[in-house]
Amino acid sequence: MYKQNHLSNVRVVLSHTTHPGNIGAAARAMKTMGLHHLYLINPRHFPDPQAAAMAAGADDVLQNAVVCGAIDEALQGVVLTVAMTARLRDISNEVLTPRAAMPLVLQQAATQSVALLFGTEMSGLTNEEVSRAQMLVNIPANPDFSSLNLASSVQVMAYELSVAAQSFQPAQQLLQPAAHEQVEGFMVHLEKALHEIGFFTTQNPARMMQRLRRLYARARLEADEINILRGILSVTTEYNARLKARYRQDNDV
Amino acid sequence: MYKQNHLSNVRVVLSHTTHPGNIGAAARAMKTMGLHHLYLINPRHFPDPQAAAMAAGADDVLQNAVVCGAIDEALQGVVLTVAMTARLRDISNEVLTPRAAMPLVLQQAATQSVALLFGTEMSGLTNEEVSRAQMLVNIPANPDFSSLNLASSVQVMAYELSVAAQSFQPAQQLLQPAAHEQVEGFMVHLEKALHEIGFFTTQNPARMMQRLRRLYARARLEADEINILRGILSVTTEYNARLKARYRQDNDV
Repeated sequence: MYKQNHLSNVRVVLSHTTHPGNIGAAARAMKTMGLHHLYLINPRHFPDPQAAAMAAGADDVLQNAVVCGAIDEALQGVVLTVAMTARLRDISNEVLTPRAAMPLVLQQAATQSVALLFGTEMSGLTNEEVSRAQMLVNIPANPDFSSLNLASSVQVMAYELSVAAQSFQPAQQLLQPAAHEQVEGFMVHLEKALHEIGFFTTQNPARMMQRLRRLYARARLEADEINILRGILSVTTEYNARLKARYRQDNDV
Repeated sequence: MYKQNHLSNVRVVLSHTTHPGNIGAAARAMKTMGLHHLYLINPRHFPDPQAAAMAAGADDVLQNAVVCGAIDEALQGVVLTVAMTARLRDISNEVLTPRAAMPLVLQQAATQSVALLFGTEMSGLTNEEVSRAQMLVNIPANPDFSSLNLASSVQVMAYELSVAAQSFQPAQQLLQPAAHEQVEGFMVHLEKALHEIGFFTTQNPARMMQRLRRLYARARLEADEINILRGILSVTTEYNARLKARYRQDNDV
């Protein structure tokens, strides 16, 4: 029916879920489609009897759920994060349909960890959370009433993934993207370096970092490439430091 | 986003729903995908505050819901009924996936009424209810845990229908199947005629009628064809009546 080895590399991450019933219903939706790994970022109530009631037989998914205090914890080891969005964002990322996204998700999940990231019921994911993702997916809906229930969104995504898994053929050449924490380490390094060389004196740092995040999210950096880029950053800041030191020496400051 | 004219001919029929929250969640799922016509066969509790709470903005779908006392009432005027099934049936009907079914559903919904029929939460549709359908659909699921929540099933079906509607091209030659009540009128006539000619003396009537239902469900009878078949039945029973009368006359009984 579906390829267990692919689906076992897929985790569902629910951020700041308000209603515990939705967590249980999401667990049930996952299990019906062969997904078992649930991560919860700061759920308002969990564990909770309402979650257990709505899980209706998917208790194992709830019992094994990993509760996290921050998004970077939930994405530890993940090489592809897919963020769900119900609206257009100010930064114009490419937004895929579930059907277009799933072959790419499976391609990655064949060998490495992938996360499907769902926001809170009322307002979805924050821009900060979306900036952690390499792919944005929107479930096409009635423009006059597009708000799917959280568990319904999980059901549709898990269903599309399961259907896609049945006919999936892996590509020959696999990209080996770096894990979430390696990418975040690079982003921190990059921002620090840009500060040091004085780049932000004429730029809005937050806005610029968002644009750079978007660029590197599209690139899906491999670990080797991150090492190269961080090497360049190190040399740049060292050169800059030497320039500053020489300037101080020459000017006796 | 989707073709309103097609989707407006599609009704969702929920039979004997136990939990009113599921009715509300189903209404929400429908509306997110552009479906608006909800029919309820003997719901345990309706209207109900839990239904309204779970509808979360799809109140109009709930307010316009048609509550029926029997399945034939809910299928009045319908020319194609799609029954949802989570299990194999004793009579081996062909069972389609949602994706394979939707182009056929849209083809019919372009001009006539179509019903998506969902059973009760615990046990699904009865065999009696399934026998009213011309098409069976199963949502492919984890064989170890295949029980989708009712509203989740509605969400997946409505989603598949909405996605299919976006790329749908109607065929040139349209079948014009007869309405549900015309087909049922024929089945009653057929069963009565088979009784009269003594066909059931060597056959299990219920089992045989199920098999004949399956045959005619596949054929998707048009109104003209039903008139022809009922004409044949009338002639047959009249001929049979004449034979009996002559037999009685000849034997003075």
